[in-house]
Amino acid sequence: MQNFIFENPTKIIFGKGQIGKTGREIAKFGKKVLMVYGEGSIKKSGVYDQVIASLQNADIEIVEFPGARANPVLSHALKGVEVAREKGVDVVLAVGGGSVIDTAKTIAVGAKTDDDLWDFFTHKKAIKDALPLLTVVTLSASASEMNPAAVITNEEGSQKFSIRSPFIQPKTSILDPTALFTLSPSYSAYSAVDAIIHMLEGYFNNTEPESAMQDRLVEAIMKTIMENTEVILKNPEDYNARANMMWSAILAFNGLTTAGMGTVSLPAHMIEHSLSALYNIAHGAGLSIVMPAWMSSIVGDNPSKYARLAREIFGVKEDDDLKAGNDGIKRLREWFASIGSPVSLKDVGIPEGDIETIAENARELAKVWGLKNYTEEVIADILKLCK
Amino acid sequence: MQNFIFENPTKIIFGKGQIGKTGREIAKFGKKVLMVYGEGSIKKSGVYDQVIASLQNADIEIVEFPGARANPVLSHALKGVEVAREKGVDVVLAVGGGSVIDTAKTIAVGAKTDDDLWDFFTHKKAIKDALPLLTVVTLSASASEMNPAAVITNEEGSQKFSIRSPFIQPKTSILDPTALFTLSPSYSAYSAVDAIIHMLEGYFNNTEPESAMQDRLVEAIMKTIMENTEVILKNPEDYNARANMMWSAILAFNGLTTAGMGTVSLPAHMIEHSLSALYNIAHGAGLSIVMPAWMSSIVGDNPSKYARLAREIFGVKEDDDLKAGNDGIKRLREWFASIGSPVSLKDVGIPEGDIETIAENARELAKVWGLKNYTEEVIADILKLCK
Repeated sequence: MQNFIFENPTKIIFGKGQIGKTGREIAKFGKKVLMVYGEGSIKKSGVYDQVIASLQNADIEIVEFPGARANPVLSHALKGVEVAREKGVDVVLAVGGGSVIDTAKTIAVGAKTDDDLWDFFTHKKAIKDALPLLTVVTLSASASEMNPAAVITNEEGSQKFSIRSPFIQPKTSILDPTALFTLSPSYSAYSAVDAIIHMLEGYFNNTEPESAMQDRLVEAIMKTIMENTEVILKNPEDYNARANMMWSAILAFNGLTTAGMGTVSLPAHMIEHSLSALYNIAHGAGLSIVMPAWMSSIVGDNPSKYARLAREIFGVKEDDDLKAGNDGIKRLREWFASIGSPVSLKDVGIPEGDIETIAENARELAKVWGLKNYTEEVIADILKLCK
Repeated sequence: MQNFIFENPTKIIFGKGQIGKTGREIAKFGKKVLMVYGEGSIKKSGVYDQVIASLQNADIEIVEFPGARANPVLSHALKGVEVAREKGVDVVLAVGGGSVIDTAKTIAVGAKTDDDLWDFFTHKKAIKDALPLLTVVTLSASASEMNPAAVITNEEGSQKFSIRSPFIQPKTSILDPTALFTLSPSYSAYSAVDAIIHMLEGYFNNTEPESAMQDRLVEAIMKTIMENTEVILKNPEDYNARANMMWSAILAFNGLTTAGMGTVSLPAHMIEHSLSALYNIAHGAGLSIVMPAWMSSIVGDNPSKYARLAREIFGVKEDDDLKAGNDGIKRLREWFASIGSPVSLKDVGIPEGDIETIAENARELAKVWGLKNYTEEVIADILKLCK
């Protein structure tokens, strides 16, 4: 096990009826809140009304900032920064999934700096302050509600980059599984894909050979996500399945499964960011296309690890590691398809002829993330396996 | 999954060479520290010198308070409170295992109240403040380094009771696995027993029937503890095995495995506390005596859960749940014996004739912890199975 620091102070308030606590949690950090949300699904689901009532009960002054879209964009966050400054809010509340939370995190940083916000995403500057941020979660996938990261797309250059800082770690996140009841089958599937792949990137891409414990944690959480997603697709209002998914998505990417694993890289995410930046497809949908292809491209380097996944998750009996590993990749791809997530570029209408352009875009993020081996050629070769 | 709040803000600094960071972490909370430790093992292991050097480098004024013993006692903690007040320390540093950390937690509370300290342990009063507390860990079992609990024995009445409050959650804990290299085989074994039984109490004693995810986490961590303990007993200086044990002991009792599981009770701990309060045996040693007996007394109420443990951990193939469950209990007891932890009252020289006295003592804690079904008769019947 390698040296590490683990610190995750977010307070999680989990369960039915907990959204009513939003006001009192916000009141600990200020009297005027910027309420960031998306394109209106929270109004249909009733979460909007619950949050507003709770904030009003706690005498919080509310400044609404709706309109965050999936694959959130920098220009929108910059408008949020203007509103936050103009209205002098003390605290930011995200009500939504990863896109809304990441928009809110970006606004929280922007409200406390005069620097160019994008410089933090290109790692030119370090974040030194942010407004306090809280969340009410309505889509569980990114774990942004319990981690210090955010991802935003800069439309100029179509770059989907990320920031990471303890200043944007949420103070409190409120998770009511019933808020997921109205989530569509597609987004329920993409959420599962996203959470699983967060873990699998760490499972395959770390610098520590002694990982028995973390491997077991990943497998435990992955099994939970898979079996509960199957239940959710049959019955979207199965409380326990939604609750398990809500908590699993957090455990998948809150630092737990990679503690002690050394340097963890996210090459599948790196490539996928280009798909969602260029074509605005859902992040989970992009990941279920890229991940099996990425795994196929690299299985030969470490077949025993891929074989382990195949045996633990899919019960593959094959003794030969490479064969077992490849069988596991095939089954993972089939499972993604079975829950309705795309598994090829064709599935989402991206023409093969675009591969060079995508690879060129992805290479920019590879540089920022220090993934030196991922040249345009390597990335293009992986994309060719996504057919 | 039932409603829950998860909040664990302790910063963990984990790995080789990290004890040198003690001074700078302490400096964030004050300039004068009460350094609480035990009966001298840290001087033999070299940890004492490392801590002192780090504190001196950070210009921290040090007030030493040694002498905490295994099964720490209230009278000693009260002396620590006097010293802390007299010297006007700003912060408390525990350097040791659970006994030292719990002594330090009790002192941290005592230094900020004029109430009778024992009233917090009998749940007559709620803790409202404490000095900030940090730890350097030299024995990994209790998870006290990353949780808000402490256990102390009041010699008057031989009562081993506990407190729980966010005020005593450590701010920072420094875990260097090499600090465990000199831990004796006995205490290495007791540590494993303690960590495993923390989890098994939650595994068997919760009020939530849908626990697939938490069950898998418990099983993952338990397997890790068992395989690494076997390595440690062969080679006490196996870094990776000590590291896995150090992190597993924390995950076993930092709130992770019981999140969403409703009300979790600790009946085996309740009974064991009387053994260590009355006979001053190591807590882990007492637990390996009580736990299999307690399991045998209750297996018939929920055989499928005991069968699950038997199959997952010990690979038991038996189809009948009750038979499988009983086989698992037998194998757990054998495993405890195999690592050198006692499995009967006889093993630690406690005469059968004392059972009534022990049961009477345990009943007092059963009342404080709200374990209504545990009458003296029920407790005595379990103790009779500890032969």
